[in-house]
Amino acid sequence: MDLREHIAIVQNFPKEGISFKDITPLMDNGEAFKYAVDQIVEFAKEVGADIIVGPEARGFIIGCPVAYALGIGFAPVRKPGKLPREVVSVEYALEYGTNVLAMHKDAISPGQKVLIIDDLLATGGTVDATIQLVEKLGGTVAGCAFIIELTELNGREKIGNYPIKTLLQY
Amino acid sequence: MDLREHIAIVQNFPKEGISFKDITPLMDNGEAFKYAVDQIVEFAKEVGADIIVGPEARGFIIGCPVAYALGIGFAPVRKPGKLPREVVSVEYALEYGTNVLAMHKDAISPGQKVLIIDDLLATGGTVDATIQLVEKLGGTVAGCAFIIELTELNGREKIGNYPIKTLLQY
Repeated sequence: MDLREHIAIVQNFPKEGISFKDITPLMDNGEAFKYAVDQIVEFAKEVGADIIVGPEARGFIIGCPVAYALGIGFAPVRKPGKLPREVVSVEYALEYGTNVLAMHKDAISPGQKVLIIDDLLATGGTVDATIQLVEKLGGTVAGCAFIIELTELNGREKIGNYPIKTLLQY
Repeated sequence: MDLREHIAIVQNFPKEGISFKDITPLMDNGEAFKYAVDQIVEFAKEVGADIIVGPEARGFIIGCPVAYALGIGFAPVRKPGKLPREVVSVEYALEYGTNVLAMHKDAISPGQKVLIIDDLLATGGTVDATIQLVEKLGGTVAGCAFIIELTELNGREKIGNYPIKTLLQY
């Protein structure tokens, strides 16, 4: 299956000059959605993941079905104020200003092998912050998986030597 | 399995006087997460759903695995400015002020049987807005499913005669 047929390219969103890759047509098509999830399920087996971690909101879209398919847990990465119990946080730089991401302190047990899943690997800021959160909690990053990689933005460099799976490159 | 053992009750979150039901321990436990999703998969089969609709962000957590398990699509309901293509919107009242939710115009085909999934049925404002969006797009609401129902808030009244499944009542 060519997943590329199920991605909508939207020019100048969210701002002028950006060519946005919209995964909602892929999600809307049961066959394409299942195929994409199953590709990442295979990668999760290869790297031996025993928990999935994904940032809100689009990281939940693929990450939660992968966790379900493997019968393992899913731990969310969220913006400040969304998680009700004690958290660890990481602040990271954006083009303008900074962003903060958080996880519950008990989301990962020390030594758990974590697969990080998000929809998009762009500059790598979000995945870099997520790796830091996982490691603060004593988890081991088993790998990182994405539907789409924007290769020109070199997000891979932020991930270092961890195994990476991306289903589509632009 | 008693899913109640996997819900954390957090007092005074997000504000004084609220007893928040936190589903992250349920998600974190692979067995409990799979059990919860499978309950709603069974309901989806009973009502004959052919697409799942869920509001961001927690609606994605259960809704996406249910869609995956059934091999059907998932259409997200999002806040304004998040969906890049043409949308339909609904505005609804909150305790103070209003909220707007949107779906892509092509998210549902006329006549599709839609199961709406979210984590929580409280006052029913979000599900009521979601029902309106689905019907604006020509979809038929096959049912509504939630992990948790706060029975005192009477959210069921907003759903009317559509079939409802809730896994835990408080």
